[in-house]
Amino acid sequence: MILTVTLNAALDVTYEVDALVPQGSHRVRRIRERAGGKGINVASVLVGMGVPAMATGLLGGPTGSRIAADLNARSVPHAFHSCAGDSRRTLNIVSADDGEATIFNERGPLVTPEEWTALLDRVTGLITRTAATVVVLSGSLPRGVPEDAYGQLIVLTHAHGARSILDANGPALGLALAAHPDLVKPNVMELIGATGVGDPVAGAEALRRNGALDVVVSAGRDGVVALPRDGGVLGARLRAPLAGNPTGAGDAMVAAFAAGLADNVTADPATEGGWATMLTAAVAWSGAAVLQPVAGAVDLHDVARLVPEVEMEMAKDDAGRTG
Amino acid sequence: MILTVTLNAALDVTYEVDALVPQGSHRVRRIRERAGGKGINVASVLVGMGVPAMATGLLGGPTGSRIAADLNARSVPHAFHSCAGDSRRTLNIVSADDGEATIFNERGPLVTPEEWTALLDRVTGLITRTAATVVVLSGSLPRGVPEDAYGQLIVLTHAHGARSILDANGPALGLALAAHPDLVKPNVMELIGATGVGDPVAGAEALRRNGALDVVVSAGRDGVVALPRDGGVLGARLRAPLAGNPTGAGDAMVAAFAAGLADNVTADPATEGGWATMLTAAVAWSGAAVLQPVAGAVDLHDVARLVPEVEMEMAKDDAGRTG
Repeated sequence: MILTVTLNAALDVTYEVDALVPQGSHRVRRIRERAGGKGINVASVLVGMGVPAMATGLLGGPTGSRIAADLNARSVPHAFHSCAGDSRRTLNIVSADDGEATIFNERGPLVTPEEWTALLDRVTGLITRTAATVVVLSGSLPRGVPEDAYGQLIVLTHAHGARSILDANGPALGLALAAHPDLVKPNVMELIGATGVGDPVAGAEALRRNGALDVVVSAGRDGVVALPRDGGVLGARLRAPLAGNPTGAGDAMVAAFAAGLADNVTADPATEGGWATMLTAAVAWSGAAVLQPVAGAVDLHDVARLVPEVEMEMAKDDAGRTG
Repeated sequence: MILTVTLNAALDVTYEVDALVPQGSHRVRRIRERAGGKGINVASVLVGMGVPAMATGLLGGPTGSRIAADLNARSVPHAFHSCAGDSRRTLNIVSADDGEATIFNERGPLVTPEEWTALLDRVTGLITRTAATVVVLSGSLPRGVPEDAYGQLIVLTHAHGARSILDANGPALGLALAAHPDLVKPNVMELIGATGVGDPVAGAEALRRNGALDVVVSAGRDGVVALPRDGGVLGARLRAPLAGNPTGAGDAMVAAFAAGLADNVTADPATEGGWATMLTAAVAWSGAAVLQPVAGAVDLHDVARLVPEVEMEMAKDDAGRTG
């Protein structure tokens, strides 16, 4: 079982309008609502790929109820702790004239110390009860939780024998590294934010020095670069990049890594073979997500079709590290 | 008691952002939510002015629950019928850089024939039970209600001995005139939409020919023009127009007319005195609304201060009608 933790879950709302006119009055032609937040997207992709997963975190208020209702409708198992504040919305205004989106992100609830403690208890209980082997920590932190929230959750995860994946940015990422997350997946912008370095290898090495074990950097059309804890640098990308909707592609990639860790593929005696399997899946799943109109979804057939399209690249210096 | 009917109630949501950037990603600095819809605003102003009023209409879903909760918090009595569809939101995105607003109007629920029948029963029951003397019908129609919804409600209102005020536009206004609403209050744009005529007197006369009894036309800074059923033309305006927020000024004006009809001021033997009283209140209340940051509110002290600032203008031809 893979447990995903979403501390600042969102209701992703899309308004379709004819054209966005600043200072204008718009009739909303169509409204779509979908449970969102990075951890929820990861769980949703896993469930869609047939991998046992459950979403937890904090949900509150009427917006939280709508998020839960959508997860029920999509058959994504969930066990959130209820907080008093209302969960946030992210509003996506899409203009029919040019297809472009304008995004508004609410901040989300103010979490109390008691709610944070209860969330830690909830995660502990779920790891134990579901025998979770991987815990995915994704997305931004709501106001009120400790700055090292992800560090605390990583310590707790490891104490209960599960492995941790972290997909965060800024201080939430930086302060969690000392807890030695098993796998960290920044994109290039997040890497720059956390390390000041845009080069995937140099940036990943900086994260490693600060405590991360495996580091994978997603680089959009340039695929993914991995620096496993045992040394070396591996790259993987699609032979031909895909056009589509990049929202949620990173979450699908995290889902693939979670599935790989849960399957223990990197513990294969031929470690590179394990990593090749995992990176191939990561690129194929994120490519399949690009083909979907919404985040948190992939089509199994797209994944199967894309796997043979993934190119691998491996480099290792004499010390088993990149030069 | 004054009963206000809001068939397409709204949760008015305001997002404050630093600056609206089309195709950008925005952090929402502050969110405000307030129950809205024209009839709700009218009831809210009346309650604030100490006039007994109650809001009814249709409310549904989680958004309807939030509207009801806000009415409770503001001590506005309400007795809405629950519909299955979710009530709409109106989103107002305010840029801190220029103070300008960009508005997005959701459509609101699709009302079923059974819900419409139940709403008619609800209004009938409320008129009887609260001994309502005035029923205010304000705002747009949700999908699914009959085109002559306001006509049906006016017939029902008169059948139960109450007087009707109509503040609508387009077909909802045009189709209701045959039921002889006691007072119709279009603004100049609505008048043009309904009659093709922008001149307040000529447009009001057209509405009278189609069945309206008293007609008052709100003209923003130019005040209000009234064509009472007994003839004549009366005008009233503030000596010096006010700068501020015009949203909800029309609703405050309707509230003043409702209070006047409920007090029977136009039945005063000196009819012109009655109308002068009512128009003075209408201009003062709508002026006080302009000074408020939100719709559905006036400050009693502003109203008291503005009453002596209202200028009246009266004209009557020999036949008791304007020339």
